Amino acid sequence: MKDILFEKIKKLLESKQFNKIKKILSELHPADIVYYINRLDSDNQILLFAMLDESTASDVLSDLHDDVRELIIESINTNRLTKIIDEMESDDAADIISELDEDDTKKILESIDLEDSENIRKLLKYDEDSAGGLMQTEIIAVSAQSKRDKLIEDIRKNREKVENIHYVYVVDELNRLLGLLEIASLLFADENDTAKDLVEDDIFYVRFDEDQEQVANIFRKYDLISLPVVDYENHLLGRITVDDVIDVIDEEASEDAYKMVGLDSDDKVFTSPLESVKKRLPWLVLNLFTAILVSTVVGFFQGSIEKLSVLAVLMPIVAGLGGNAGIQTLTVITRGIAMGEMTLQNTWKAITKEVSVGLVNGILIGASASLVAYLLKGDIRIGIVLGVAMIINMFVAGLMGSLIPVIMRSLKIDPALASSIIITMLTDICGYASFLGLATIFLLH
Amino acid sequence: MKDILFEKIKKLLESKQFNKIKKILSELHPADIVYYINRLDSDNQILLFAMLDESTASDVLSDLHDDVRELIIESINTNRLTKIIDEMESDDAADIISELDEDDTKKILESIDLEDSENIRKLLKYDEDSAGGLMQTEIIAVSAQSKRDKLIEDIRKNREKVENIHYVYVVDELNRLLGLLEIASLLFADENDTAKDLVEDDIFYVRFDEDQEQVANIFRKYDLISLPVVDYENHLLGRITVDDVIDVIDEEASEDAYKMVGLDSDDKVFTSPLESVKKRLPWLVLNLFTAILVSTVVGFFQGSIEKLSVLAVLMPIVAGLGGNAGIQTLTVITRGIAMGEMTLQNTWKAITKEVSVGLVNGILIGASASLVAYLLKGDIRIGIVLGVAMIINMFVAGLMGSLIPVIMRSLKIDPALASSIIITMLTDICGYASFLGLATIFLLH
Repeated sequence: MKDILFEKIKKLLESKQFNKIKKILSELHPADIVYYINRLDSDNQILLFAMLDESTASDVLSDLHDDVRELIIESINTNRLTKIIDEMESDDAADIISELDEDDTKKILESIDLEDSENIRKLLKYDEDSAGGLMQTEIIAVSAQSKRDKLIEDIRKNREKVENIHYVYVVDELNRLLGLLEIASLLFADENDTAKDLVEDDIFYVRFDEDQEQVANIFRKYDLISLPVVDYENHLLGRITVDDVIDVIDEEASEDAYKMVGLDSDDKVFTSPLESVKKRLPWLVLNLFTAILVSTVVGFFQGSIEKLSVLAVLMPIVAGLGGNAGIQTLTVITRGIAMGEMTLQNTWKAITKEVSVGLVNGILIGASASLVAYLLKGDIRIGIVLGVAMIINMFVAGLMGSLIPVIMRSLKIDPALASSIIITMLTDICGYASFLGLATIFLLH
Repeated sequence: MKDILFEKIKKLLESKQFNKIKKILSELHPADIVYYINRLDSDNQILLFAMLDESTASDVLSDLHDDVRELIIESINTNRLTKIIDEMESDDAADIISELDEDDTKKILESIDLEDSENIRKLLKYDEDSAGGLMQTEIIAVSAQSKRDKLIEDIRKNREKVENIHYVYVVDELNRLLGLLEIASLLFADENDTAKDLVEDDIFYVRFDEDQEQVANIFRKYDLISLPVVDYENHLLGRITVDDVIDVIDEEASEDAYKMVGLDSDDKVFTSPLESVKKRLPWLVLNLFTAILVSTVVGFFQGSIEKLSVLAVLMPIVAGLGGNAGIQTLTVITRGIAMGEMTLQNTWKAITKEVSVGLVNGILIGASASLVAYLLKGDIRIGIVLGVAMIINMFVAGLMGSLIPVIMRSLKIDPALASSIIITMLTDICGYASFLGLATIFLLH
């Protein structure tokens, strides 16, 4: 279905039948328009966006891929951008404005609705990875003293301005958060009930400076759909909704996967090649150093290799399996830390487990490799040396793959940075050194 | 704060002051009790769970780590388990029951409330990774013909049974979904308004057999907090709530990270060592085969290594950097596919980009490595051979790291399975073959 429509839009764009396209766009959900614009080439991205009315454009703009959004913002004039931003929820508006240059920011903030502009100015001050950076200021706050009909009236007045009213927040005369009011409870309330009578006061809230990862954990743990944000004195500032938290969760999952392999989180599929080269180069330079270190260790045994060149043929087996086993352990442990399954109490249990798994698998795989080496090379001694080196290396892989992220966490360094490069360096060094070392001692002396 | 309380609970457990513990537990949120139980040793896990009343126990049980839940289910008698399950929402109850053996399942389904038992039986039939497997049957459905006061009455009657009433679903006389009703709209409704007058009918819904990953994408794309589930004839079956979708998103992120390194998704930090050995062994056996293949390729050049042993010292540099660069590309591409950023239209653009990035980084890193090799070994020719081999290998890393997941996706195989093992095998083979091959041609002939 969808792709047929997409093909149709592309054909209509080619034949410049803009009125037909506008008709199709007017019937689509903004999220579907986002989907299509992301997939067009850049000229048509600009063209299609230009056809949207400001209200739809405001829903579409914030959800486009970063690079597409940048392109479109550059392409439209400041007046239209101002009108589009004026239609946005405060959190989205602040995100867009934070990417603009100073002149545009000033111009836009001066042209939009005064209240909006003040809210956005406030939001721009918060760290974008904090609760303040995630929240929107569009909320319905009611006074604890208000009676039922006044409460209903307050909701009616704000209904257009606030999307997805899950709850109404109850505050005191100083705007300090007292609790929340379920809309349903108003259906059953008595005329004389006040917000104070109906309030649910045992609720979750966060301070504006709470880290976004922590915010996501609170949503996860307590199954929330929105969460009020307060300042140090408990004044209500805004709310975070679950859809923004899902974006955080996706972002953090990408980040962890990326850090494990030394990638920068902005290095996406369609980041420009030059950007990607720049972002990956420092890490590859580091990798060159670790590789030279590994090569130096092999160099110590160059004499042995000269005497027995089969060692060079077999040594990649020891290093390869150790590296992969180490990365497996690293993945289990860092994911366990990210999901909150690892704590100080059970760290040793986890390390002991990984070490035993490494040892047992090392013995099983090492024995098989011994046998294969014996069958291929006809020398039982070389098989045994290979097997023992593999056992040692997989033991080390289990130990390092679990110990390093744990140590990093206790040093307050993100454990996901214990990337594959460090682990493979260690298993390479240990693998080559143990295999070539044992061979030198038992086969050559 | 929290850890002080945890220490206190542990001390009270040691000194067997159970009444004090019960008092603490009664004041905690179930999610916090989950947090503590997960962190105790197994005897105390059973002890603490035994102190919970059935209602709290039902909230706690579904959220415990898999292995802890299994242990606790084994430890309690079927009568208590029945009462606990009777208190659960249908989706959680079905998840627990699906893990029990036949006898227990039968016994429990016969003892609980008939309506609950029928609902659970129905839920057990759905694939656990489908919309049906995610949904709960506790919903409020109202008839399109009902007037305002009847609607309010329907909500009042069901309010206790259904947690988090975000919406009320409107159905026709055959229970076919017509749309949804916002609770707030009832506040402003006229006495004679029917559900049909107030309904929002342009809504999202899914069929019971939709895949859970697709369900998560719908929530993501349209920023939903709940989603009704229907059968082939559009009959309303239940709803999926966003908290369950967050679990799916976490699970899928872990799964992707795991598949990349050949791990089974049930292989967690505290899976028993024996289980983990069993789960990882087949993959390591496969890895042994790929490593032997790599070793065979090196074996073709054993003669060259015999003549020039420095080749064995330098060859890990070529293979190591190629492997890591390949895994980087693989991560970018598979994450791009998972997040829906890659489509058929832009696949070639992505592959071209990764190949050029590989090539450019290869030239830069290869040139540096040449220089280092020349400085260390005093032979410019060996430096050049090393550099050229690295350029070739990083080009191949970019090509294979992007091409393989794309091909796998077009064959309907999960691209995350294009795991590091396949990529490192290819970059190892290419790295050793190009370096040793070039050396054989240019240095030894």
